[in-house]
Amino acid sequence: MILIGERINGSFKDIGAAIKEKKKAPIQEWAKKQTEAGADYLDVNLGAVSKSPEDFSWLIKTVCEAVPTPLSVDCNKLELMRAGLETHREVAGSRPLIINSTTAEESKLMPLVELAVKYDGGLIGVVMDERGSPQDVDRRVELGAKIFAVASEAGLTPDRIYLDPIVMPLKFMQEQGKNVLEAIRQFAMISDPPPHISVGLSNICSKAEERGLINRTFLVMAMAAGCDAAICNVMDTELVNAVATAELILNKEIYSDSYLKAYRKRA
Amino acid sequence: MILIGERINGSFKDIGAAIKEKKKAPIQEWAKKQTEAGADYLDVNLGAVSKSPEDFSWLIKTVCEAVPTPLSVDCNKLELMRAGLETHREVAGSRPLIINSTTAEESKLMPLVELAVKYDGGLIGVVMDERGSPQDVDRRVELGAKIFAVASEAGLTPDRIYLDPIVMPLKFMQEQGKNVLEAIRQFAMISDPPPHISVGLSNICSKAEERGLINRTFLVMAMAAGCDAAICNVMDTELVNAVATAELILNKEIYSDSYLKAYRKRA
Repeated sequence: MILIGERINGSFKDIGAAIKEKKKAPIQEWAKKQTEAGADYLDVNLGAVSKSPEDFSWLIKTVCEAVPTPLSVDCNKLELMRAGLETHREVAGSRPLIINSTTAEESKLMPLVELAVKYDGGLIGVVMDERGSPQDVDRRVELGAKIFAVASEAGLTPDRIYLDPIVMPLKFMQEQGKNVLEAIRQFAMISDPPPHISVGLSNICSKAEERGLINRTFLVMAMAAGCDAAICNVMDTELVNAVATAELILNKEIYSDSYLKAYRKRA
Repeated sequence: MILIGERINGSFKDIGAAIKEKKKAPIQEWAKKQTEAGADYLDVNLGAVSKSPEDFSWLIKTVCEAVPTPLSVDCNKLELMRAGLETHREVAGSRPLIINSTTAEESKLMPLVELAVKYDGGLIGVVMDERGSPQDVDRRVELGAKIFAVASEAGLTPDRIYLDPIVMPLKFMQEQGKNVLEAIRQFAMISDPPPHISVGLSNICSKAEERGLINRTFLVMAMAAGCDAAICNVMDTELVNAVATAELILNKEIYSDSYLKAYRKRA
């Protein structure tokens, strides 16, 4: 399972403040903590705190200095993304990275695919387009197939393509859970080998009471359907334990009585 | 989800002793406790303590007296099963019941199906035959389809047929977890509406360290694949909470902030 730590995001108060005040310490601490907790990638996002390319570059540099963990460079403005990726190349060289994200929108898909090619990165493709987020399975799969086709044609191999079926809040759109699981199952059949399938997990428990329980239950179900990546709270021990156990059941990690410890140290 | 409480089984020391000494209290206490915990059925099994039809009849009577919860009448001897079902009819009348279990073996399948027809019960069909337990998906599905066909032809509707894919210990047969999940997915396509799909859950964690975690992770994955019944430890609160959450995600129970409480009271 590819665990992408969600915590370095300007939407969290401490990170937002650190970005504004250019304080490296709180950011670098989260980079280290998430890495120790087992994060394979660290998502790095300004949130609503800033739209400045300089701030994004500073944030990326700050994280790259602190840990060797690969980044998921996360923003939805093309101009910011270009600046961020250029900075990443300067400071991290050929370190692996994920570009987070494109959609199937005409104005985004080709430019983002080109950036993924240019910077030798993985690319998350969120299955929405000009018409918004799909509610049904078919449209999710249609948009996933479109993103996959465009990315493949440009030279991205399946292991560099991450399809995101768009997880929706259980509390408000309860019927969408099943649709997302079925879309994941169908994404896994788009090619052989399949693309990665990634979820933005925390959306599932939005405004709900039993957040941790809902997160880990959904993620385990998504893994059974073929999901192999998640942007999530890697500091949630019960979540990571559930992931480690699901990996055993899917025969992707080898059983030992101390498999929970082993899973954290896998990197 | 159909939760079948596993605890009234002579293999547990306290139940074994109670059967030998004909003490009703410990047995009736477990009947009540499991019912309160949310059991839909109570599995009733002599274990290795006795092979006497009188003891089985006594055990069934003892449980039926204590609670109105339906039973899963569980033994692998035809003679005992006949006695048990006759007793069940005498003491519980037309109360629903599950007959646990037949296999696809020639010597068992028709007799057990006939008992299910005669006593108006559900029937668990474990997908093994004279050649033993299958290791692969295809043979599980082949035997499941055979049991389903014979039971259907005799008049059992899909809602009275429970296919059991045979869960195996993760610690010793790690590759079987995936096969069981895939078999469940295929069982769910045997008919429309599908038969029930039931697992003997506790086998998955045999001799492992993280028993509760492995149980609930596997069950949630099995539910995502189509499993809708489990013989399990209903006293395990975290297991039942995981089941309740999976039911929400599958849109089978309605979300409320207090859904965990609501799930326990659903009966």
